[in-house]
Amino acid sequence: MGLNLDSVIKLSDAGEAPIDPITLFVALLCVCIVIGNLLEKNRWMNVSITALAIGLCTGIIILLTTKGKSSRSFLFNGNLFFIYLLPPIIFSAGFQMKKKRFFRNFITINVFGAVGTFISFSIISIGSAQIFKKFGLGSLDLGDYFALGAIFAATDSVCTLQVLNQEETPLLYSLVFGEGVVNDATSVVLFHAVQKFDLVPITSAMVIRFAGSFLYLFISSTLLGIAVGLMSAYVIKKLYFGRHSSNREVALMILMAYLSYMMAELCRLSGILSVFFCGIVMSHYTLHNLSESSRVTTKHVTRLFSFISETFIFLYVGMDALDIEKWNAVGKSPGTSIAVSSILFGLVMVGRAASIFPLSYLTNLAKKSPSDRIGFKQQVTIWWAGLMRGAVSVALAYNKFTTYGRSQVRDNDIIITSTITIVVFSNVVFGLLTKPLVRLMVQPNEEPGNMTSFELSSPRSLTIPFLSNGLDSGSDSGGTHIQRRSSLAMLLTKPTYTVHYHWRNFDNSFMRPIFGGSQNSHSNDLLQQY
Amino acid sequence: MGLNLDSVIKLSDAGEAPIDPITLFVALLCVCIVIGNLLEKNRWMNVSITALAIGLCTGIIILLTTKGKSSRSFLFNGNLFFIYLLPPIIFSAGFQMKKKRFFRNFITINVFGAVGTFISFSIISIGSAQIFKKFGLGSLDLGDYFALGAIFAATDSVCTLQVLNQEETPLLYSLVFGEGVVNDATSVVLFHAVQKFDLVPITSAMVIRFAGSFLYLFISSTLLGIAVGLMSAYVIKKLYFGRHSSNREVALMILMAYLSYMMAELCRLSGILSVFFCGIVMSHYTLHNLSESSRVTTKHVTRLFSFISETFIFLYVGMDALDIEKWNAVGKSPGTSIAVSSILFGLVMVGRAASIFPLSYLTNLAKKSPSDRIGFKQQVTIWWAGLMRGAVSVALAYNKFTTYGRSQVRDNDIIITSTITIVVFSNVVFGLLTKPLVRLMVQPNEEPGNMTSFELSSPRSLTIPFLSNGLDSGSDSGGTHIQRRSSLAMLLTKPTYTVHYHWRNFDNSFMRPIFGGSQNSHSNDLLQQY
Repeated sequence: MGLNLDSVIKLSDAGEAPIDPITLFVALLCVCIVIGNLLEKNRWMNVSITALAIGLCTGIIILLTTKGKSSRSFLFNGNLFFIYLLPPIIFSAGFQMKKKRFFRNFITINVFGAVGTFISFSIISIGSAQIFKKFGLGSLDLGDYFALGAIFAATDSVCTLQVLNQEETPLLYSLVFGEGVVNDATSVVLFHAVQKFDLVPITSAMVIRFAGSFLYLFISSTLLGIAVGLMSAYVIKKLYFGRHSSNREVALMILMAYLSYMMAELCRLSGILSVFFCGIVMSHYTLHNLSESSRVTTKHVTRLFSFISETFIFLYVGMDALDIEKWNAVGKSPGTSIAVSSILFGLVMVGRAASIFPLSYLTNLAKKSPSDRIGFKQQVTIWWAGLMRGAVSVALAYNKFTTYGRSQVRDNDIIITSTITIVVFSNVVFGLLTKPLVRLMVQPNEEPGNMTSFELSSPRSLTIPFLSNGLDSGSDSGGTHIQRRSSLAMLLTKPTYTVHYHWRNFDNSFMRPIFGGSQNSHSNDLLQQY
Repeated sequence: MGLNLDSVIKLSDAGEAPIDPITLFVALLCVCIVIGNLLEKNRWMNVSITALAIGLCTGIIILLTTKGKSSRSFLFNGNLFFIYLLPPIIFSAGFQMKKKRFFRNFITINVFGAVGTFISFSIISIGSAQIFKKFGLGSLDLGDYFALGAIFAATDSVCTLQVLNQEETPLLYSLVFGEGVVNDATSVVLFHAVQKFDLVPITSAMVIRFAGSFLYLFISSTLLGIAVGLMSAYVIKKLYFGRHSSNREVALMILMAYLSYMMAELCRLSGILSVFFCGIVMSHYTLHNLSESSRVTTKHVTRLFSFISETFIFLYVGMDALDIEKWNAVGKSPGTSIAVSSILFGLVMVGRAASIFPLSYLTNLAKKSPSDRIGFKQQVTIWWAGLMRGAVSVALAYNKFTTYGRSQVRDNDIIITSTITIVVFSNVVFGLLTKPLVRLMVQPNEEPGNMTSFELSSPRSLTIPFLSNGLDSGSDSGGTHIQRRSSLAMLLTKPTYTVHYHWRNFDNSFMRPIFGGSQNSHSNDLLQQY
């Protein structure tokens, strides 16, 4: 992500008070878990919305007890979010990702994540620049509009994870979540690029340089994550900690995953991409070198950290929504603020529509089998699920439009409050409606591309070697059939499958002997049991 | 502990820089785990000394690369230590404590922890006040000497846990560790008391007020910890999270444990005592309300956090030992600094001898059975094991003798460097020698009071109901015999056992039905398996 270090330090210094807010937040987290559990049977609610609501209520209580001075116990800390809360969420997602589906849709995910985000960014930037001048937001320059584009092009993979279910709608989940990860990287790169480059006039050389810096960032972040993951597998395999103490191996694995994130941040790369791929590599290799109880612990610990981080973020956004100082400035021109929020959210919807539908059409053209194509109902669901904006947007907005956690200019206040309005609105409305919509639009067992039904019904599936990840069993017999056909003919007709086939051979004969990996079914049974 | 909030905030604000030091520390923690694992067969080494050594080496490297400007990547942060690192260590200790042994020695532990610490405090305070004036440390007043007494009366339970083994020497472990927990509380109370009260002249009213404030702190902290622990058991039992998601129950339990610490700190009580008793209650009740995989996870997660925190502390103390600014000031009078360190450490040794040996004699007088008494060799081991000084001393010294993490006066610099010298010296020397000493002084199977041999060999043991904790099985048949004897007669002859007997009846008939607890052996087997 490579946020400007200086501004992060300043935010952190200005916005920290220790015992009281920590106690408050820990107590609120407990309340969220209890209430979230009680409300779980309610089909409309989920933990994010519960946390948002509790955050809002707490904000109101603080507002009343401090007699309208403040609604928050401490200022928004970009540091806290990017250094402590985001890594466990993304690592957990990579660690628990169904790798088959992710890599099967790798190209689609990247097209949506990179090209789609760029389309959204362009539409939001240009649209806001054209419209906002009419509302008297004169102090914003072109750089600010580009920053706005980057801020609102960032979808919220955390919210998405809350409303989509990997088991019920696997294709949608992998597309929307995978897109979200690439989108995170793209929008942060965009945000940096528009702050660094002098954007007027836009030349073709700049576009090429920009594309180059994106590719560099994407590839080097991914490689860093994979390298750290492989190193952890090798070290844990060689040292064989299990015989001494299982805590050490779990500690080493989690610390190394975190290290991949921090090293990427330190090198101004995308920590999100690194820790995501580190999670994938660790679940493929490192996990199999651990002792049995350590495996259970690791799986639970990653989910646990991720769960606490997510709840914390929503709680904070809820509390932050009532920050009275910013609303005071906005109160003098409420019409402008409402208009700005509505326009921005309209642009977000248009921008996403302009990226999802054409890109779906294009990727569908490339797919020969109708079962692989993305149907219209699914396109609508993908469009809808990606409309939520969350903590990344808030963090970027604070980074750009405030100094020391407090904004200086009225126009900046309006942007900050609009961001919060959009985040709360999109989370509440889309959080409430997405579950029913998914149920309405996509019947879980009707979803084309649903791996389970696909594998069982289609006879062709037996001849297709998927990328095996050691945890998904059942397609292990695939490799033998395919060898009867020419590799070259396969590569031309089914490039993805051929890549998977060769990867699998390479994995079994070279990677697994070095880095570890499951061949025995006993350990898999244990993993599935828990 | 109730450190002054303002100073904590200032320390935190002054001493935080985000990405670089975190990356460095995470990388060093990984190195510590790997090297610690490689050196484990070495009988002299342990993880603390490895971490100290790696910290020292890193300090030297930073010193060389910054050309002698600094050896640390960030300043000592009392906040970090008391808010994030200490709670998991103490909770884990309470959670994994063998409750039978702890409560059996409850009186001895409290005598050592409270009275012993007060004796040490008095000797160190008065001794240093008498001797230091001769070395020209004129700027220190009586309050400073009392603070010194409190700082060096604080033993380091973290180091003790590293060198003593609960399985090999259970009596010593429970005595030394239990004493350490009470000692932590006592020395922090003392530290506060000497800062708050005007100490000249010392009146009897002040002594009474002081004893009252200690008792208030001790009892209310314990009750708070027990209340939070019971609440967690009740909530988790009532909500029965297991059927939905096991992460939530684990998250709730760990968050509530942390909440007990933070609430105690917020009320200016001893967080250490609270979280310790919360851990005991949670392992007795809450743990049995969790699903099976959650139990495994909870046990591992607590150990994991504790392990990472401990390693982190030693790593930091190692790096901090070379902080060049303080040594510059000391460099002008190296003789004084060496003399101060030696005298302080001499006083620590004398103070501990003056508390352990007389108090052991007194507690032995109260015990009729020779097998319950503490032998001379054991007294020497207890004396020795409690000589280590660690992070609590460093944190208190920084709190008292520096402003914003940097000391202002030369005498204060000397005190700080002496504290670090004593911490590093005592950790290295005693860390290296304690394992061999324990092996030499106490043969594991010869130790009187060793529960396993005691229970098996003595026929009397069958009639003694110990406090059962649900995890230790084997003495469940005890309750039936004792009912034949009069309760009053029992109370007079064996007060501790009678209390245990009534507690157990109360526990089985009233507490467990409400808060949960094990009656079936299946879950115990699982717990012992992992």
